[in-house]
Amino acid sequence: MKNRPLIVVTNDDGVHAQGISVLTRLMAQLGDVVVVAPDSARSGSACGITPVAPVRLTTVSHTDDLHIVSCSGTPVDCVKLALEKVVPRKPQLLVSGINHGDNASVSVHYSGTIGAVLEACMKGVPAIGYSLRTRQKECDFSPYEDVVMRVARRVLAEGLPQDVCLNVNFPVVDRLQGVSVCRMARGDWSHEWEQTDNPGEYILTGYFTNLEPEATDTDYWALDHGLAAITPLHLDMTYYPLLQSQTLLPLNEGRGLPNS
Amino acid sequence: MKNRPLIVVTNDDGVHAQGISVLTRLMAQLGDVVVVAPDSARSGSACGITPVAPVRLTTVSHTDDLHIVSCSGTPVDCVKLALEKVVPRKPQLLVSGINHGDNASVSVHYSGTIGAVLEACMKGVPAIGYSLRTRQKECDFSPYEDVVMRVARRVLAEGLPQDVCLNVNFPVVDRLQGVSVCRMARGDWSHEWEQTDNPGEYILTGYFTNLEPEATDTDYWALDHGLAAITPLHLDMTYYPLLQSQTLLPLNEGRGLPNS
Repeated sequence: MKNRPLIVVTNDDGVHAQGISVLTRLMAQLGDVVVVAPDSARSGSACGITPVAPVRLTTVSHTDDLHIVSCSGTPVDCVKLALEKVVPRKPQLLVSGINHGDNASVSVHYSGTIGAVLEACMKGVPAIGYSLRTRQKECDFSPYEDVVMRVARRVLAEGLPQDVCLNVNFPVVDRLQGVSVCRMARGDWSHEWEQTDNPGEYILTGYFTNLEPEATDTDYWALDHGLAAITPLHLDMTYYPLLQSQTLLPLNEGRGLPNS
Repeated sequence: MKNRPLIVVTNDDGVHAQGISVLTRLMAQLGDVVVVAPDSARSGSACGITPVAPVRLTTVSHTDDLHIVSCSGTPVDCVKLALEKVVPRKPQLLVSGINHGDNASVSVHYSGTIGAVLEACMKGVPAIGYSLRTRQKECDFSPYEDVVMRVARRVLAEGLPQDVCLNVNFPVVDRLQGVSVCRMARGDWSHEWEQTDNPGEYILTGYFTNLEPEATDTDYWALDHGLAAITPLHLDMTYYPLLQSQTLLPLNEGRGLPNS
């Protein structure tokens, strides 16, 4: 059906993860689907790319309305390759996930799920990341399917502002208490390294602390209270108050440097 | 000297790159220095971390005022390990670079140099990334040393706002025309993949386009005009206008979901 929207699906847990199979099934109700996802788990890839080394695409299956491709690169590589080398036309939507593990608060920065979403956003494709606060490989995604679909349908219908994408996180619940459109909580990972038996060798672990436990307008608060958290993210990380306050302008004084 | 500030130095080009040796030499004029940097080039690591696999620290050299450690992980791993396992006390500053290659506009998102800076910022350590618009492994960093030092001195003296760090980019010039405190330009990477002789295999390349060539308040404009570009970056990527406009709130209407 030529008039169906084209939807790209990716993730960072790998093409064989349960979360991406659920998301693929749901998106197939909304349009033609192209899946380009890592051939193995790539958690913590952030917006990482693969310089120098070749990246390989392998078709897993291909029908008229569903094309599944495995990629040896990062989630961002997957999106770059999907958009430049795989899709037959410009997609109307990219979705990433459903990640096994939440990507709320500062975890946004480490997330390959969100890396893929930011990349699509850079390329002008409306994009949504979905994540579930679980580390289990097998889980029941059915309590979240309705919100997954409603957010996707809305973005397909309305689009998103330029350079803005959505980060959707779900708590583990039998039934969502609602949806909160909210900001990133300030957060802190600590006690992050466990020494192995080899001196000088460590394994990443860590405990997360919500630094604003009282604030009710954050993603962490929403998850802690049984709500889906929808956070719009902006590609532009500039901190404008510091530009406007001119605090940094004295840096322009000094030897050989004209004021500007 | 116990009262000297402690400064952590890292990068993404690896502990043996020329840029980090220059930065280490400069920082040694300002304080005691701990270098924790990747054992090899890690360009394009973004905020990537190393889950599951062990990460190894190896001391390269150690004197009273300069401790150099090589790390098998990403730049963010380097910062996490430096702060939790290496430094003898909380640092007053972390600097990353000087990167061989600029990290202006959307390249901020891919940059391991900036990943390290964002990580330090998350941990409450004032942080600055320095990058030079060159791909050469050997280059003359002397035209930039004065600005490197002035920015570092200012951050040591004044600190930075909570959750804000600095991204400093230099053009290749004999003499800087000045300094611009500026925002991230909107940008686009295209034609990013070159096919190898093996079908389905690609190498990352690409051409960058400044999508706002007329705007004079961007990092790219500054670099194109011979100025050092200083861009304050914010950890919080929330796009607040969409929260305030309540555009997304209708998502909360629907089956079984109470309004919040």
